[in-house]
Parts: sequence; C-alpha cells; structure tokens
Amino acid sequence: MNILGLGGHASAWRLAEVPSSSLLDVDYFVNIAKISERGTLDAIFLADGPALGGDVSHHPGGRLEPTVLLTAVALATKHIGVIATASTTYNDPYNLARRLASIDHISGGRAAWNIVTTAGDIAAQNFGLTGAPLHADRYGRAAEFVDIARRLWDSWEDDAIINDWQNGVFADKSKIHEINHAGAHFSVRGPLNVPRSPQGRPVLVQAGSSEGGKSLGSRYADAIFTTQTTLPDGQAFYKEMKQRAQQWGRDPDSLKIMPGLSTVIGSTEEEAHRRCDELDSYQGELGLAGQIAARIGIAVSELDLDAPLPWHKIGDVRDVTKSSHGFFEAQINLARRENLTVRQLSRRIRSGHRLSVGTPEQIADTLTEWFLSGAADGFNIMPDMFPSGAQIFVDEVVPLLRKRGIFRTEYTGTTLRDHLGLTRPRSQYEEERNALLAG
Amino acid sequence: MNILGLGGHASAWRLAEVPSSSLLDVDYFVNIAKISERGTLDAIFLADGPALGGDVSHHPGGRLEPTVLLTAVALATKHIGVIATASTTYNDPYNLARRLASIDHISGGRAAWNIVTTAGDIAAQNFGLTGAPLHADRYGRAAEFVDIARRLWDSWEDDAIINDWQNGVFADKSKIHEINHAGAHFSVRGPLNVPRSPQGRPVLVQAGSSEGGKSLGSRYADAIFTTQTTLPDGQAFYKEMKQRAQQWGRDPDSLKIMPGLSTVIGSTEEEAHRRCDELDSYQGELGLAGQIAARIGIAVSELDLDAPLPWHKIGDVRDVTKSSHGFFEAQINLARRENLTVRQLSRRIRSGHRLSVGTPEQIADTLTEWFLSGAADGFNIMPDMFPSGAQIFVDEVVPLLRKRGIFRTEYTGTTLRDHLGLTRPRSQYEEERNALLAG
Repeated sequence: MNILGLGGHASAWRLAEVPSSSLLDVDYFVNIAKISERGTLDAIFLADGPALGGDVSHHPGGRLEPTVLLTAVALATKHIGVIATASTTYNDPYNLARRLASIDHISGGRAAWNIVTTAGDIAAQNFGLTGAPLHADRYGRAAEFVDIARRLWDSWEDDAIINDWQNGVFADKSKIHEINHAGAHFSVRGPLNVPRSPQGRPVLVQAGSSEGGKSLGSRYADAIFTTQTTLPDGQAFYKEMKQRAQQWGRDPDSLKIMPGLSTVIGSTEEEAHRRCDELDSYQGELGLAGQIAARIGIAVSELDLDAPLPWHKIGDVRDVTKSSHGFFEAQINLARRENLTVRQLSRRIRSGHRLSVGTPEQIADTLTEWFLSGAADGFNIMPDMFPSGAQIFVDEVVPLLRKRGIFRTEYTGTTLRDHLGLTRPRSQYEEERNALLAG
Repeated sequence: MNILGLGGHASAWRLAEVPSSSLLDVDYFVNIAKISERGTLDAIFLADGPALGGDVSHHPGGRLEPTVLLTAVALATKHIGVIATASTTYNDPYNLARRLASIDHISGGRAAWNIVTTAGDIAAQNFGLTGAPLHADRYGRAAEFVDIARRLWDSWEDDAIINDWQNGVFADKSKIHEINHAGAHFSVRGPLNVPRSPQGRPVLVQAGSSEGGKSLGSRYADAIFTTQTTLPDGQAFYKEMKQRAQQWGRDPDSLKIMPGLSTVIGSTEEEAHRRCDELDSYQGELGLAGQIAARIGIAVSELDLDAPLPWHKIGDVRDVTKSSHGFFEAQINLARRENLTVRQLSRRIRSGHRLSVGTPEQIADTLTEWFLSGAADGFNIMPDMFPSGAQIFVDEVVPLLRKRGIFRTEYTGTTLRDHLGLTRPRSQYEEERNALLAG
C-alpha cells in the first residue's frame, strides 16, 4: 500500500476526507497501516525526496522523513512491513545502513529500503551541488552504496554475540568484521555499530526502470517497483528482470516484481467513474495536462488535451536528470502505441502508474490477470484517496483475491521477508568462512 | 535520564539485571522512559557516535541509531522529551534538520538534538576520512551546521499553511523561504520539506566544554550538558555560560545548565557502597584504570592505581581529536587540585562525570545543593544500572526533591520546551518581517 500524501489522486485533499494537516500526523499513517494490516498486505510504502517539490500554493507539500515516520508506524503495528525511500545520492552509507538496521531491530524484522538516486536539481541544491549528478554517476554511486550497506549489515555474523555475562565475554571479535571498502565514491571501514538484524538485511526495493536501474535492481533488490501500463509490457519486463537476476547468479524467485496500480474503486462502475470525475474536476484540465507534462519533462503549454503528444518536442527534451525514466517511458510508449490524446492518456495513467477505475470485481480481475499471466508477483497499490481508498481495497478487493485462492488469509510469518516469500540471507562473511572450510 | 547502555557503570551488564540483548530491544528503552515519565523527568537522553567503539570482546557494543529509536520511544510515551545525539561532522544539515523536525511533529513537541562534533579516528574512517578533522574545523562546521538547521526549521513560518481546500489554496508561498545559505562548509537552498514543528525548533543541547564547544553552546543551545566535578567548578562554569549567553544578546535564563551526575543508590550508605564495590569488582583494577586512561587519552600501562596521575606524560599526549575535552579537563583538574591517586579519582568520577554513591537522601542533598547554589538548572542523571538505578532514582530521590519544593509533581506543559521552562522561538523570517514593518 503506497501512502502517497492524502491519496494517489492529486486532488484528494480537495475532498477533505481528512484534514491536510494529516500529513504531519503520525496517527493518519498508523491508521492506514492498520487498515492494510487488516488486509494482510505485505507492507506500506513511502516515496520520498529531500526537497520541497511541487506547487505548494495549490497542493499540500512537505512530508515527514520516512525512516523516523515508519519507525513510529512499526511500533504501532504488529505484522506489516514498512518500506522507506531514501536516496543514495544524498545520504552516507554508514548512517543509512545503520538506521535501516535499527528499524529492522525495532520492528522485529519488518524494515525495507526503497533505493532511489533522486533526479532533480532542487534536491541537489540542498546538498551543496548546483544540479543533480548525471544519471550514470548516480547509478554508479548507488551500486557502490548498496554493496557497502550489505557488507555493513553482514559485518556482525549472526552468532557474533556470546553474551557470557558470568565470565565477562560479550562477543567473538573474529565474527565482527571491518569491511575496509575503498571505492570510487566511498571509503568505509566498518564494522557497523549495530549487530545483525532480524532479517539479516532489511528488504531492498528498487524502482528505477532505466538501464542503470534495471542493472542495480536485478543485482541487489529483493523487490522491484515498476511502472507498466499494459499487460504485454508487464510480462516483458517481468521476464527480462527474472532473466537479469539469473545472469547475476541469483534464483529468479528471489526477485519479486511489483507493478504499480492506481485505483479508484466504487460499488458500481458508474460510482467509480463519478468518484474519479469529481476528483478530476478539482484538478481541472490544466492540472491533468500538467501532471503528464511534468512526468515527460516538458512545459504544460506544449500540450493540447484533445491532441496526441507533441512527438517532435519530446525527443529533444528528454533529460534523465529531470524526470523519472520509468514514468517517461511508460507514458510515451502507451500514447504512441495506442495513438492516445493527452486526455485519453490521463485516463490510463495516474501518479505515473497504470490507472484502474471500477468495481472491486474489476480491480480484483486485473490484479488476478497480471498475477496469473506472469506480469507480477505482487503490486504496489496506490488508492486515489485516504483512508477510504485503502478501506475499500482491503474490505472489498482483498476478500475476492482470497476467495480466488491467490492471496493469504492471515500472516504466516513474522518478517517482511516471510510475507514476500524471501529467505533470510546469510552473512557474506559467514559464507566466505564456510567456503574456505569446504574448499 | 541518560540511558547509557545497560547502565552508567561499565560492568552493569555483568549483573544481568536484564539480558544484554536489551540494547537491541525497543521495549527496554520504552520501559526506562516510562519509569522516567512516572518521575516527571524532563527527558531521556541517548549518547551516540557513528562507529563501533570500545572492547566488544569484553563489553556490550553496538547500539540502535538514536533518531529512530527515540521516535519509537516517543510513540510509546506521552510527556517525556527525547534527546538524540547526532554528529555535525558526519551528517548533512538538510537530512538531519528534517529528521529532527519530523520527530518533533511525531512526538507532539518533545524532540531535542544533542549536538556533537565526534572526536576519534574510527568514526572518521567510516566516512571517507583517514582521521577526525581538527577540533577547530569540527567546531567551525558545527556552528555553520546549526545555523543552517535553525534557518531550515524556520523556513516555513507558523502561519504559512492556509489549507483552504474549498478554493484549492494550500499555502502562502510568501511565508515559505529558501534559505540560500552559502558558507565555508555547506551550500543549502531550502526550504525544508517539513512545515514548522510544534516547538518551532527542536530543543538544542550541547555538551562540549572546550572553547569551541562553549562558544557554540552559549550561542545556540537551549541546554548545556557538562562535566563538573566540584561545586566551585560547577558554579564557575554556570556563571561563565550565563555570561557568554548574555554576550550573544540572549536572556541568560534561556540557557539551562545541566551537569552530569553518575549515581549508585542504596537504602543505606553501606548498601550503596556494596553495590558500587560489586560492580567495580567485575570491572577489576585494570578496568577502572583503563576507563580513566581512555578519558585522558593515554595508555593504561602508564597508570598506577595507587599513585597520582603521571603528570609529565599528560601534557604531551593531550589530543583533542582523541578524547573529549570536558572529560579530560574534569579529571585532570580534580586529580591535581586534590592530589588524588588514580583509585581515588575513580571513586569521584564515572562515565566521565561526578559520581555520587549513597542513600536517596544523600543524592537529593547534593542535587539540592548544586541547584540552590547556582551550579545547575537541572541534571543529566546517569544511574549505575538499568532499570533498577532509574527506578530507585524516580521512586526514592524524586519524592524528596518534590517535598523540598524544588521539583514538579506533574507535567504542567506538553512540550519539552515547556518542561525546561523555555519559550517557543518565533521564525527568524517572521521576526525579520516584523522588524521591517516596525522600522
């Protein structure tokens, strides 16, 4: 469950289902997490960027930092995983690895990190740069960052702590390792000052769909969040990522593919469309076009709602430092293939992701179809509005998925790895020792 | 209440009052926070450094990261403040300011930051450096860091959010400010992406007693944690810091002076000393000497427990990158003035702070004396062992202070600033506007 502000629809706040001050209220997030937990969902997810983006005059802006907010949510829940987005471009690996390991301890093994590299110059200017580093530099740093984090999480082997208080022996130092990393972007000595956490390593989620993103994700991630707008695209991406994982020597089942789905749900199709139309009406035609323009990275004045995308402009303006590769590709490809007008495109994609407007049965149908036809191992659900969009998903859609036998009726494990069907990794230092002993 | 591992005494873990795995258990910290809250204490405090220090073979090592741990503790409590230590040398101002503002929102105004600059080469080597930056460089960076953090916390004025959902107006952008800081260590554009928090700014605590530390603390801090081992020293420091605050144009009452006090409490004096002796016996003579050696920054082999400090060695080895200035000065001054042997010194100072071993009455007496004679506005209490050392302080010492009329019987406010008797600062941008209007 993706808790995107007050809802995945940009105008959710205009209906004032909850006050917009909810964005600063931990109880708002705890409530959605508890609803999600009632639906035995895997996790709640918070997107993030270290800058104030968007037009704060006309849209709620500002958000609590995810690692601390999700720690609070974890304390108020029992089962559900918590996925915090954090940037490899604007963090230090030692501090971030430590914070995530701490959340994993505090939550009893429910922590995950959504790895992003953060496009955009405004964030860069909060960290001493004039603009975002080039895409390739960001992903080079990201790969090194993730490798360091994994080594730090492994730096205490699972049985490093002896805790013989009677004889005054706390730990076996031979099982606590300096990592002594020296690379292009970082030098980190280690060990981490947090012993190994319940999941061994927090779950790694990755959301980039560029070549750099796919390479990083297939190598290191446990789950991929992705924008896929048609079933064939979804199947192709699924297949590609599983193959890439294999090429890194991984079991393809150890990489879970989770496309995003924006939802507007009503008890009848008509009601669902009425709800979507009402939300759209607050946004206005300019708002709808503006959302698409921002995802592509061109000026809204370039768009006519009732005409196709201005193709001659788009090739030129593509700038991977300014927009998300995945959102860009998804919209371009869908619009071109189906020759959609901007207005038609806005009915297919919201928050950058595939939009489904309909009854609980219709939502369950499309989830089932993607799940059973090799396009998804799970989904990143983006309800239009909170809490009602989460409630109706949990109370009306989840029971249908359960009836069809494709979703759990209760949590069968305690950690997020358990929920996702992922094994707990062994420390690479333990593996190296075992390899030495065996060899 | 300073939650120093399993207790302020280095051997607390040897008595196994709680398992040493408690260091990774949020419930352990929540329990101590709730005990402290029962005693209407101001706050709990966590020291920190981003490295694995100490001899982990023979002493529990590793600790959860304070900002996330204290967020969890805040969620489980109602009144008590939470003070997280974080380094200005190994953090970015935008990220840290944001996390602290987020904790302030989540806790309803109970967040505080203990500003440290982190001595020691091991931490530096986790962040791409070969050794810690020079003392002057660390404090130069710290002053700039704190100034940026304050501007970021002020960057949304209190009335910036309009939240007119009917007309689609969220905020008044003229009251949300880029800070456009460009200094020797940082360039930060701002604004923060978190609106102004309940306390306006989280409470700032500072603990350095070097010239750089005193300058920084008297300028920016709301409270000073300090090591003072004798009443005259405490009075002199108190007076100096209040005067320094005045020289910065501040009301001296807006700066609270809080010396540390290590406690070992028994229902009789004999029982207290037996408890201390038992803890000391686990540490051994070498352990006692080692603790003092580490604080001074010399080898333990240089110390003879029954001789004075080796004065001829100490002048030479003083290295402010390797030990805390405050701890160093306190021990040196006390030992020289009273001509103490190392063993005698160890009976006066623990965890770097003044040690008091005795009955609840005796502890209450020394707190009262310091409070009433101009040496302290409050204290940083470091019980020998948790949870018993916190329990006996709250159940036996606090009632005496209440009876004497020098400590509250219930919380009279909701924020940590309220508990400390500090006013809520106005945004400097609002003040500038008011000054313009008035002038």
